Amino acid sequence: MPDDLTLLSRRTLMLAGGATLAAVGGAQGASPPQAAVKPAPVDTGRVENGRVTFPNWRGPSDRPAAPPPAPLPPERRVGFAVVGLGRLSLEEILPAFGQTKKAKLVALLSGSPDKAKLVAAQYGVKPEAVHGYDGFAALARNPEVQAVYIVTPNGLHRDHVLAAAGAGKHVLCEKPMANSAAEARAMIDACATAGVKLMIAYRCQYETHNREVTRLVRGGQYGKPKLIEAVNTQTMSLPEQWRLRRDLAGGGALPDIGLYCLNGVRALLGEEPVAVQAQIRSPEDPLYREVEETVAFTLRFPSGALAQCNTSYGAHETRRLAVQAEGGAITLENAFAYEGQRLILNHREGRSEAREERALPVHNQFALEIDHMATCILEDRSPRTPGEEGLQDQILMEAIYEAARTGGTVALKPPERTLQKGPLDLTRGPAPEDAG
Amino acid sequence: MPDDLTLLSRRTLMLAGGATLAAVGGAQGASPPQAAVKPAPVDTGRVENGRVTFPNWRGPSDRPAAPPPAPLPPERRVGFAVVGLGRLSLEEILPAFGQTKKAKLVALLSGSPDKAKLVAAQYGVKPEAVHGYDGFAALARNPEVQAVYIVTPNGLHRDHVLAAAGAGKHVLCEKPMANSAAEARAMIDACATAGVKLMIAYRCQYETHNREVTRLVRGGQYGKPKLIEAVNTQTMSLPEQWRLRRDLAGGGALPDIGLYCLNGVRALLGEEPVAVQAQIRSPEDPLYREVEETVAFTLRFPSGALAQCNTSYGAHETRRLAVQAEGGAITLENAFAYEGQRLILNHREGRSEAREERALPVHNQFALEIDHMATCILEDRSPRTPGEEGLQDQILMEAIYEAARTGGTVALKPPERTLQKGPLDLTRGPAPEDAG
Amino acid sequence: MPDDLTLLSRRTLMLAGGATLAAVGGAQGASPPQAAVKPAPVDTGRVENGRVTFPNWRGPSDRPAAPPPAPLPPERRVGFAVVGLGRLSLEEILPAFGQTKKAKLVALLSGSPDKAKLVAAQYGVKPEAVHGYDGFAALARNPEVQAVYIVTPNGLHRDHVLAAAGAGKHVLCEKPMANSAAEARAMIDACATAGVKLMIAYRCQYETHNREVTRLVRGGQYGKPKLIEAVNTQTMSLPEQWRLRRDLAGGGALPDIGLYCLNGVRALLGEEPVAVQAQIRSPEDPLYREVEETVAFTLRFPSGALAQCNTSYGAHETRRLAVQAEGGAITLENAFAYEGQRLILNHREGRSEAREERALPVHNQFALEIDHMATCILEDRSPRTPGEEGLQDQILMEAIYEAARTGGTVALKPPERTLQKGPLDLTRGPAPEDAG
Amino acid sequence: MPDDLTLLSRRTLMLAGGATLAAVGGAQGASPPQAAVKPAPVDTGRVENGRVTFPNWRGPSDRPAAPPPAPLPPERRVGFAVVGLGRLSLEEILPAFGQTKKAKLVALLSGSPDKAKLVAAQYGVKPEAVHGYDGFAALARNPEVQAVYIVTPNGLHRDHVLAAAGAGKHVLCEKPMANSAAEARAMIDACATAGVKLMIAYRCQYETHNREVTRLVRGGQYGKPKLIEAVNTQTMSLPEQWRLRRDLAGGGALPDIGLYCLNGVRALLGEEPVAVQAQIRSPEDPLYREVEETVAFTLRFPSGALAQCNTSYGAHETRRLAVQAEGGAITLENAFAYEGQRLILNHREGRSEAREERALPVHNQFALEIDHMATCILEDRSPRTPGEEGLQDQILMEAIYEAARTGGTVALKPPERTLQKGPLDLTRGPAPEDAG
Repeated sequence: MPDDLTLLSRRTLMLAGGATLAAVGGAQGASPPQAAVKPAPVDTGRVENGRVTFPNWRGPSDRPAAPPPAPLPPERRVGFAVVGLGRLSLEEILPAFGQTKKAKLVALLSGSPDKAKLVAAQYGVKPEAVHGYDGFAALARNPEVQAVYIVTPNGLHRDHVLAAAGAGKHVLCEKPMANSAAEARAMIDACATAGVKLMIAYRCQYETHNREVTRLVRGGQYGKPKLIEAVNTQTMSLPEQWRLRRDLAGGGALPDIGLYCLNGVRALLGEEPVAVQAQIRSPEDPLYREVEETVAFTLRFPSGALAQCNTSYGAHETRRLAVQAEGGAITLENAFAYEGQRLILNHREGRSEAREERALPVHNQFALEIDHMATCILEDRSPRTPGEEGLQDQILMEAIYEAARTGGTVALKPPERTLQKGPLDLTRGPAPEDAG
Repeated sequence: MPDDLTLLSRRTLMLAGGATLAAVGGAQGASPPQAAVKPAPVDTGRVENGRVTFPNWRGPSDRPAAPPPAPLPPERRVGFAVVGLGRLSLEEILPAFGQTKKAKLVALLSGSPDKAKLVAAQYGVKPEAVHGYDGFAALARNPEVQAVYIVTPNGLHRDHVLAAAGAGKHVLCEKPMANSAAEARAMIDACATAGVKLMIAYRCQYETHNREVTRLVRGGQYGKPKLIEAVNTQTMSLPEQWRLRRDLAGGGALPDIGLYCLNGVRALLGEEPVAVQAQIRSPEDPLYREVEETVAFTLRFPSGALAQCNTSYGAHETRRLAVQAEGGAITLENAFAYEGQRLILNHREGRSEAREERALPVHNQFALEIDHMATCILEDRSPRTPGEEGLQDQILMEAIYEAARTGGTVALKPPERTLQKGPLDLTRGPAPEDAG
Repeated sequence: MPDDLTLLSRRTLMLAGGATLAAVGGAQGASPPQAAVKPAPVDTGRVENGRVTFPNWRGPSDRPAAPPPAPLPPERRVGFAVVGLGRLSLEEILPAFGQTKKAKLVALLSGSPDKAKLVAAQYGVKPEAVHGYDGFAALARNPEVQAVYIVTPNGLHRDHVLAAAGAGKHVLCEKPMANSAAEARAMIDACATAGVKLMIAYRCQYETHNREVTRLVRGGQYGKPKLIEAVNTQTMSLPEQWRLRRDLAGGGALPDIGLYCLNGVRALLGEEPVAVQAQIRSPEDPLYREVEETVAFTLRFPSGALAQCNTSYGAHETRRLAVQAEGGAITLENAFAYEGQRLILNHREGRSEAREERALPVHNQFALEIDHMATCILEDRSPRTPGEEGLQDQILMEAIYEAARTGGTVALKPPERTLQKGPLDLTRGPAPEDAG
Repeated sequence: MPDDLTLLSRRTLMLAGGATLAAVGGAQGASPPQAAVKPAPVDTGRVENGRVTFPNWRGPSDRPAAPPPAPLPPERRVGFAVVGLGRLSLEEILPAFGQTKKAKLVALLSGSPDKAKLVAAQYGVKPEAVHGYDGFAALARNPEVQAVYIVTPNGLHRDHVLAAAGAGKHVLCEKPMANSAAEARAMIDACATAGVKLMIAYRCQYETHNREVTRLVRGGQYGKPKLIEAVNTQTMSLPEQWRLRRDLAGGGALPDIGLYCLNGVRALLGEEPVAVQAQIRSPEDPLYREVEETVAFTLRFPSGALAQCNTSYGAHETRRLAVQAEGGAITLENAFAYEGQRLILNHREGRSEAREERALPVHNQFALEIDHMATCILEDRSPRTPGEEGLQDQILMEAIYEAARTGGTVALKPPERTLQKGPLDLTRGPAPEDAG
């Protein structure tokens, strides 16, 4: 295999590019021809199995670079339609397609034609692949579209997923899956009937640091987890947002951001909780006329762990996941944020206490999640976070609301729909591939 | 302006998508038609001046989201050819084009045809735009190519820049600019003669955290900077790498990574140093037969600051920039790394000492740098880091080597070629636009 | 006021100390007599109001030093007897007397004569002031003893406090106050009857960082607190320790370390909770035959805050207090530890998120607490944490056990015994003096 | 060996203390006599070799407590006279005697009689042991005084050490040792002639975190150190301080705080530098009429390390020691401060980069240093930091000033006076005992 530089001397280059160099006039004079000694070979990488790889060039005390990305050629990637052009799509999801390796953006559905037209131009989506919310039939006819990513308000998820399934497309649906467990069941059924995959966009289950926490907890090096704290708070204003309308949002802080605590703890342990207690508070504020501001709930897990979860629309943004285990403590700051995760391990180190922060490679979470959906389509696998995963959270959120209403402990049943029998991850598909 | 959701009720949707929904059978039953009360309007953003914007929906104590990206449509972006497909291109630069907003990748030059062919497919570069190192003439004929990014070993920069200029293309050249000041002068001259822009890829001058440090230091809120420490170290192995060959690298740690210290301190202050002292050490190790391992140098600036810079190929990766000023200390951990910058401000807060870490939005540095080049081309401006900036560093690196050789203090002259007369930033163009 | 150095030249010194200097021979020759110019005056501090003070000599950007300590002369300090020579006394409390400014150690009571004799010698306690647990009558006769610090197992607190009160001495009693609310009431009554002060050793209410958190929360600069997390965990072994015996400890993790969470949250807000939910778990382990391992409980406060508290004897030591407020988050790492507190404030700073760690002066917590008791005795004031504060926690711990047993929400009554009409700090005395 | 609690039931206690308990009336009723079952034994520690020890009661994942301190009985401790009652004595040194285990304060010398009288009362020093600076003869006659701690301005150290040696007392002298190498030689000679020990108060060589850094660097687990940065800066005001007078201070930032960098690097490596370069800067400010503000210097060590040191009186307080080694980076924040040291280890951990902060037990540095002097006197050993250590720094500081003056590299000779031949620590005595 020829290397770019193996046989290259500056002389060689000048001969090869001579005509061009001559054109700019005389500059060669600054670099006299070198001696005839053939230089040592220089490594320029290997091409193997459709990837370029390089030998590690760093000393053993530094992390080796990850292998270079090997994106699929555009024509082999899975084409996605994105439905809904609100903040999340514009700020996060559409830009993330620039970092996917197996997916591409090929169509848009929106209720705002002007916005859709502008955005389509920005992202190179063909004008004929831009539609209103009545465009599912057109999607059905577009062979470039293999999957639909539903990014509309929660209260519309059910209908949009049904429409996408009806169009015969695989579906990636934002969380929370729906406004109710009943809606979630209908969505699972519709996708099953239509023979399409359904994945809920639990991006943290694809995010590298969250996965490392799961790996550390389940790997057991710190012993049994005893107590878990999950906090997800932010502040709100702007009364005209759909998140504050019950019909569109399904609830307040709980389904929107408290869900990260709930799903995060479940995904971490792999177990399902057996009991829940909860408290809800909302201030006298028109913002919270329809939905709740603050929820605190406690989950009891069969293996012995207790998890305390806190969520609020009324507190400065904090997004922490912390695990107190027998042999150490694991904290993930910004666990549920779009970026800025910080993994901190506290453990004894002889006579001292170590607070070890581990910097992992950073990846765009949305790109990881979208690529996982693409991989599942390309390889015909079940997504890690299928509809069943979303349904279980809907059932649990309904139990949390009940617990808060009654003040008592609500006993929880095993998951209603499962993918496997195993002791863990009953509502989940196989673990996703590693990032990068 | 119509909004996607303003007039939308779930009923509306179902009518609109009715035919499709019917196809999946009966699922509507789970969601009974809602009452006829028209829901409150829901914000869905504005389209203004070719951008989509949304009102802030977070409370005042949380950071508002940045406006959504507004990428240029693909057909209006500046087309780049990348020359050289080594690690840096494969691992960082080619992926970064997925995050640029004004640039696109349209051609490749490489000495390894197999590698080039594979990579072109991965990144959607047309086969006819893939060339060997003798392909500058072909670039000249390709109107899609407006700029050339030179990512070859340092010792080839001069010839490749000359070739690109000869092809009539604007040039973005990796740092260090060249193996010598003489080569750098030739490159500036060639680009001037050819009437093309020349920018040196000092990515840190475009990186958000480094720019914030500069803003803080120059803004004066912490008073005069007195002492600066810049450290850039990493470890090496693999004798077959061009970085260890003098003809290809021009030197060892100094031009490769010590340059970040040198350029970082200069860019921070905006001033030029007036004197330098230096020490060089290299162990008995075949890796360092041709190039140096470790350099420590001290720069004296006219305004009163002293900067101590440390660089080594023989120490675990550390990339710190620290400023001790009258009123506080500013430290940027991972200052020169591709990611992971941490900005830390130490200052008095009443009776306590505050160590304040500020998390800024994270952007891909290479994308910022490439977009700056594209902006300069689109708007016909001078780049922030033109060839003159690179030349000044080449001159200073030659002075550092001389200081180390003689053990004495080397006096430094004002920059040889400047863009402006002002007291600061003599070798630089206007400040780049803000990121995202 | 004469200064040590104002009029001092090296010559002056040599004359003054001349005879002595001559004795070591000839060394003066190395320092020739200086010129007769009188040097500028040099600051050496002021003596005012029984304190030495110095003007600040640091620039405005550095914290000024605290005024030098002004310890009371030994003969004016309050004499303490320490009852119980277990780990806490030996490791923390006796050494802390070296850092008190108003208290001194003058007597010991212990059940281990050999240990008591050795310890008395180490700390300069007179042999005649060392007694067995039957020594309260001897304490009564010793005028040097003004206060008794009870550091015996919890189950003995009631009897030892009664004995100390019976001896007519003021009482400082370790936390938890007792094994039950009934015992706590008896202790308050006994001290009232005897006309002696009773303080419970809630050291965190005297510790600088915890007090700063309280100041920040109550000061309102971060708005209303919405959610609070308090975690206090550690691991246990050694079955032969009194903490694992119900009769001696009164319970497991809850009264021993969970009490810090409970009291910490109450002291932070100044309010009293109105409802509590709880969960308890203990593994199959002989260590936990008599007492519980793990408790999670949630407190509801009238002003709107919810607090989730976690404590365990089965998890690596973590001692965190975190407050999520409208305008920022306040975290105190190692909140309940003997040392190593870290105060972290998260808040928005323009477009960035600031994580500000504030280093406060460090003080020995036990010395602060003991000095507070001494101050209250010297000035005849009520302690910040009197018996009423301890009683309220005993009542709440009984409610937590009840909530865990029933699974329901337990409604809480206002404090049974109060010092003031509130609105805040009903069970507390005046705020303690500032440290240092 | 009897335990305090082994045989103790609550009944036993009540019998023993019965009369007393009866006096407070009826409270026993709250605690009914317990059943006759003899409770399990409870651990209460051992008395062995003059120490109390307890078995570890924490689980294996938590740090065991250090053994309880075993202070020497007061009458066996080494009696110290403190000479000079400026800020350092009042703020740090006198309070530190409350934390020493082998030393006690027994006499004071000061030029301010009022101040001395007040301070003596506060610290329990007998009035007859309080003198002016002419009191060395009185010290000579006082058998309680075994050692003298010289805490006067630098320019007086020589004469005060000579006076103390002349009085036949061992000497602990603050750093910098003197105003010149010549003075330092005279001090060593005088103490040798008088047959007394001389120790220079390099407290960081006794401080736990600094010692841990030395242990880590020399232990080699991170490979060879290549580059070291030492920064010690603070800001100044108050023209009337002796630190700004050349005759009293001997220089500016260099001898006062830059010395920590110099001595810190030397103590870390154990080696002596072979060459030095330096730069000095001082602003136009009356504060710096006599002494320098800012010094940057670079030291070359025979083993291959380069050290860059920065010190200034004109920059916000920063006191960092950082080591870049082959296999990792070691940073000690607040290295040279009185408290707040933070030890941070950066190293690769698989695919991630770990930033591991290790919390060590905290000890008062002055108490450790004073106790080391006491130990050396009690055991007739050489101090770790004798006069020879101080002399070497004086010689090196003179070389730094020369290097700054000439702009060239100053070659350095081996230490002039040494304690041993070994490859390392030529100017030092045996390593000090471990703290607590």
